[in-house]
Amino acid sequence: MTEALQMKIKVINPNTTLSMTATIAASARASVAPGTCVEAVSPTSGPESIESHYDEALAAVGMLREIEAGEVEGYDGYVIACFGDPGLLAAREVARGPVVGIAEASMRTAGYLGRSFTVVTTLARTVGRAWDLAHEYGVAGACSGIRSCEIPVVELERDPTAYTSIRDVAQEALACDGADVIVLGCAGMSDLCARLQADLGVPVIDGVAAATTQVEALVRMGLRTSIRGEFAPPPAKLHR
Amino acid sequence: MTEALQMKIKVINPNTTLSMTATIAASARASVAPGTCVEAVSPTSGPESIESHYDEALAAVGMLREIEAGEVEGYDGYVIACFGDPGLLAAREVARGPVVGIAEASMRTAGYLGRSFTVVTTLARTVGRAWDLAHEYGVAGACSGIRSCEIPVVELERDPTAYTSIRDVAQEALACDGADVIVLGCAGMSDLCARLQADLGVPVIDGVAAATTQVEALVRMGLRTSIRGEFAPPPAKLHR
Amino acid sequence: MTEALQMKIKVINPNTTLSMTATIAASARASVAPGTCVEAVSPTSGPESIESHYDEALAAVGMLREIEAGEVEGYDGYVIACFGDPGLLAAREVARGPVVGIAEASMRTAGYLGRSFTVVTTLARTVGRAWDLAHEYGVAGACSGIRSCEIPVVELERDPTAYTSIRDVAQEALACDGADVIVLGCAGMSDLCARLQADLGVPVIDGVAAATTQVEALVRMGLRTSIRGEFAPPPAKLHR
Amino acid sequence: MTEALQMKIKVINPNTTLSMTATIAASARASVAPGTCVEAVSPTSGPESIESHYDEALAAVGMLREIEAGEVEGYDGYVIACFGDPGLLAAREVARGPVVGIAEASMRTAGYLGRSFTVVTTLARTVGRAWDLAHEYGVAGACSGIRSCEIPVVELERDPTAYTSIRDVAQEALACDGADVIVLGCAGMSDLCARLQADLGVPVIDGVAAATTQVEALVRMGLRTSIRGEFAPPPAKLHR
Amino acid sequence: MTEALQMKIKVINPNTTLSMTATIAASARASVAPGTCVEAVSPTSGPESIESHYDEALAAVGMLREIEAGEVEGYDGYVIACFGDPGLLAAREVARGPVVGIAEASMRTAGYLGRSFTVVTTLARTVGRAWDLAHEYGVAGACSGIRSCEIPVVELERDPTAYTSIRDVAQEALACDGADVIVLGCAGMSDLCARLQADLGVPVIDGVAAATTQVEALVRMGLRTSIRGEFAPPPAKLHR
Amino acid sequence: MTEALQMKIKVINPNTTLSMTATIAASARASVAPGTCVEAVSPTSGPESIESHYDEALAAVGMLREIEAGEVEGYDGYVIACFGDPGLLAAREVARGPVVGIAEASMRTAGYLGRSFTVVTTLARTVGRAWDLAHEYGVAGACSGIRSCEIPVVELERDPTAYTSIRDVAQEALACDGADVIVLGCAGMSDLCARLQADLGVPVIDGVAAATTQVEALVRMGLRTSIRGEFAPPPAKLHR
Repeated sequence: MTEALQMKIKVINPNTTLSMTATIAASARASVAPGTCVEAVSPTSGPESIESHYDEALAAVGMLREIEAGEVEGYDGYVIACFGDPGLLAAREVARGPVVGIAEASMRTAGYLGRSFTVVTTLARTVGRAWDLAHEYGVAGACSGIRSCEIPVVELERDPTAYTSIRDVAQEALACDGADVIVLGCAGMSDLCARLQADLGVPVIDGVAAATTQVEALVRMGLRTSIRGEFAPPPAKLHR
Repeated sequence: MTEALQMKIKVINPNTTLSMTATIAASARASVAPGTCVEAVSPTSGPESIESHYDEALAAVGMLREIEAGEVEGYDGYVIACFGDPGLLAAREVARGPVVGIAEASMRTAGYLGRSFTVVTTLARTVGRAWDLAHEYGVAGACSGIRSCEIPVVELERDPTAYTSIRDVAQEALACDGADVIVLGCAGMSDLCARLQADLGVPVIDGVAAATTQVEALVRMGLRTSIRGEFAPPPAKLHR
Repeated sequence: MTEALQMKIKVINPNTTLSMTATIAASARASVAPGTCVEAVSPTSGPESIESHYDEALAAVGMLREIEAGEVEGYDGYVIACFGDPGLLAAREVARGPVVGIAEASMRTAGYLGRSFTVVTTLARTVGRAWDLAHEYGVAGACSGIRSCEIPVVELERDPTAYTSIRDVAQEALACDGADVIVLGCAGMSDLCARLQADLGVPVIDGVAAATTQVEALVRMGLRTSIRGEFAPPPAKLHR
Repeated sequence: MTEALQMKIKVINPNTTLSMTATIAASARASVAPGTCVEAVSPTSGPESIESHYDEALAAVGMLREIEAGEVEGYDGYVIACFGDPGLLAAREVARGPVVGIAEASMRTAGYLGRSFTVVTTLARTVGRAWDLAHEYGVAGACSGIRSCEIPVVELERDPTAYTSIRDVAQEALACDGADVIVLGCAGMSDLCARLQADLGVPVIDGVAAATTQVEALVRMGLRTSIRGEFAPPPAKLHR
Repeated sequence: MTEALQMKIKVINPNTTLSMTATIAASARASVAPGTCVEAVSPTSGPESIESHYDEALAAVGMLREIEAGEVEGYDGYVIACFGDPGLLAAREVARGPVVGIAEASMRTAGYLGRSFTVVTTLARTVGRAWDLAHEYGVAGACSGIRSCEIPVVELERDPTAYTSIRDVAQEALACDGADVIVLGCAGMSDLCARLQADLGVPVIDGVAAATTQVEALVRMGLRTSIRGEFAPPPAKLHR
Repeated sequence: MTEALQMKIKVINPNTTLSMTATIAASARASVAPGTCVEAVSPTSGPESIESHYDEALAAVGMLREIEAGEVEGYDGYVIACFGDPGLLAAREVARGPVVGIAEASMRTAGYLGRSFTVVTTLARTVGRAWDLAHEYGVAGACSGIRSCEIPVVELERDPTAYTSIRDVAQEALACDGADVIVLGCAGMSDLCARLQADLGVPVIDGVAAATTQVEALVRMGLRTSIRGEFAPPPAKLHR
């Protein structure tokens, strides 16, 4: 048992829906150890939700501004709390401390818990992006499916049937894909995680918790992004 | 032999160095058929060159604004003339006509010409991104190497040793990687292509020409990005 | 806009059914730019259609004879218009100009238009070969299926139900495979392409057009098969 | 910030060298949060070190006995502290709480910190096993090399040149492999981690710390091995 | 035609059910050439059947004791007759002659006979292990499925419906997976092979026969496990 | 021990150099069991050696004629004795009994003997083809290199330095590639196998022996090419 390490983690919700930021903050704080301080923020501008490559491109800029601000504010590490991990590699160039996306954290975490996982995401149009990430992170072989519940991100907290829709899609994944683990494919689902796990009887992974505990572990181990090569600070240059 | 089809292609240099835009325009125009009109532009704001994930994230937004403008202006197709193909998938959501990146076009074109290609890029820190693209486009198995000449993008047109440096790196690729094709890893190298090909004795691919002729072929065949699913126009939403 | 480049492309139908050669010629000619001359031929001997590895082996020899003749006749490039791409690598050794197969061209072209494509081929027994090619060309990850309509090649132009059978298989691919692009798996289907695209509402790729425009682009860019190594002219040798 | 969660983790050194168990205990304890209790043990029988497939097979049985004992003792989770991750999947069937191996934890952790990692292991004969694990965990694409220092496991703590040998191999990896992260390929190297990181200037990952913090995070998130299917408790059966 | 080579092969059933050992012996003997002597044995201790990673770990030790005894007894080669190939790599370190597992032999043999094979195994919980082996042996691309009949290993010889259950699962594989070859996923099914092949009309591979003939061929060719590196005899060491 | 099974295997040397056919015959006969009759033949027409895709395409036709003749002559199985495995899949459609190529047999056999193999082939221009086969057969992950000795096929039996050249290349493979097994990349090297193995101290695989013993084993097990689907006899059709 070690002394409590004081640590500050900034969790960035790359969209601008503040109620979702609050949900994310609650999930992140519930998962950390004593002595770890979590702040959750949204960019000052950008789309209300991220459901396309276009949304991701626009949201990445606001997210990067929050990383830059965080470097001044003195954070030890960062979480990008959108399942597309928008701007993740760029954020690693900018931040001194570690940066973890919720897609990479949840999909890698699944590898410790079972043979294969299915992601339950919001809209079908995001499935391709999630597969791209699964390949990029080396987990495509363990990914038994990516299924959508067809609930837009901003409806997750308004639609009274959201929980049952997500649960039904997860049950299909267990029955049809052979999955033994479920990964939640949107930060806005994090408040449903415990209930889903209880109902489904298999591990259900909330990427917000997975990424925040991962950043915490990296900071505690003294590990930061390598600045040898690709992730060195970006070269200064003129902007028109 | 067909009638000359009137066609307008917009070639977007995602950085804001106008002299490079001019070089790109010349390369694109030299490769198209009669009746094909090519315009080359730069975003009104953004970095002068793209040499990091951070630069790519910032440049993608300006590039997307040019696509949106292009839709009003009435273009038939688009080229993204930066070897990182920044914002490519987002652009496909926004444009009605086809959009082709110079990395995908040049790396796929190499498959018609030899067993394996090596990319000659600018800075070593971009090598990882180029490998990611090679995997995404399915050509990693044919990619015998990605080598950097360590000349920053904006120096390509100023540094008198640029040509010999690039040629020397390409010759190393032929000798050490077993490559039989060279792919130029930066739009700013396109004016060196013919001379390199003559000196090296192997095919040298300029992505600007490869992408522009590819867009031209797609338009002539009546092929556009599929709007069934992932690349449908992005959902309208509130922006803060 | 460039001056019209005079260019001669030889499109080789490796089977000996002349009515199919005529269909192929029409498709190839409809896709090229002004100034591009297309000739379509069949070998003087060989099988009437190619539906097995055995047929491919026999047809490859006749196809190679046409390449050899083409070198004397002065062609700038060649298309092999059979979806098995028979003898493609051998042809590259023999020809000075570029040689493109319709399977490689159509499957690579699909990558510019959507997330995933399904091939609609003739007989189920050719599905394995098409998968082998998808792997060889690096596009297996984007190939959502290869489905057969069970119409023999020579029946494509005789069977009045051919169009509806192919369309129905394509619709199954859209519904079941998640494909957003259709690739026609036989040169004999090229005359159905426009109608299918109109009916299906997704891009439909005719390999004959894709390969012919690709050869045209390569010639215009001054690109030929690399003769460094594997594709150098074959060593002269005694034949018994 | 959450209340301190009481948690007991059993770290199993699968070999029977007790001095190494003490080193492992120190590393594990240094990385956990307040309230986490770590015990480190060795099997009562088995080989003094694990440097072959044969050693692994024998050591796995003793390791499993420690898991079985741990289930009676009431542990919340387990670490297998040998870089071959011997018996990992079997342990997951037996334990209720999560089980993490140091190879999987360190190689997955590397993915958060850089483009590519090289493993520095003990003997060359273990390199093949480490590659097998890299493939199994999906990280082979990020693994830029597995290099051996040719120091037997039991010599790591006796050989006064061990540190410099390991450091020199790591420096070769940085220079030749393009690695930007180093992974220590033996639990017996964990006490060298901080010094190596300081000397090399890149992140150096000790699997003992990585695995222990990973178990801690899983327990805190309420995540256990899925018992749906493959990792359900093994069927009871007769033993001769 | 060569002179009959005297050769002794030891076939090890890693479980301790002697009736299954007898079945295995019969299958192995039926497949070898004149002059080849086959002995089949079980370990003196271990589980009665192998249906989990835990069973495999325990059985591997007894199997290795039989290899060690075999080295004294003077065998020329060994077969490990359990579809999980437990302890295979360790056995290669210990034996001078070749060692072949029935999973690797049957899955590689399938490659000579058709496009794709489906494995029919016993319990669903072993499917993951079989996929791991398919990947390890490079045959995952040819594996069209791994299906379980849900008959425990020890019931194969007692359950009167075993044959029809296995046949029905195999027929499903032919109909649904597109398999053209069936691989039996348990040594205890080897006596059903000929009948299944007759009923199904496709090749059915018994791993016991495939592995035994493979060892025989290796011995006849004078080929043994390479002792250069990984499979050299394991280092001697203290055991507690 | 079984009764001697009478069996006739036809080994086809696809080139027309009869002295090489004699070498192949000797190697094949030396590896089979009593009762197995081996005949080795060459096509009546075709190239004297196979060193290009072009040679392969021409030689495949003559090889297929020998398969067709063999079906009349009553052979139980066939070997294609050229390392490019020309026409292998076509031959499987035509023959009732099994057909095995020497590349597939030797590369799969290597998997039983070590971690990785390097192929020593004749000319560098055949290296690409050998890699394609390694991928097709699923063994690319185990292939540590394909190296050429730059001796043309017909010179293997004339050039007095051939043996030392091949041995030197193999020694480089052991030193540089980490190979622990050598595969001979030309049927014309089969008479050098035993001497090389003695000199190198690692297993050296002659594909002629590996393929012939594989056919023998398949015939003894009653296994033939599946005629369900792809490898059914080719459809009869008109030839011009």
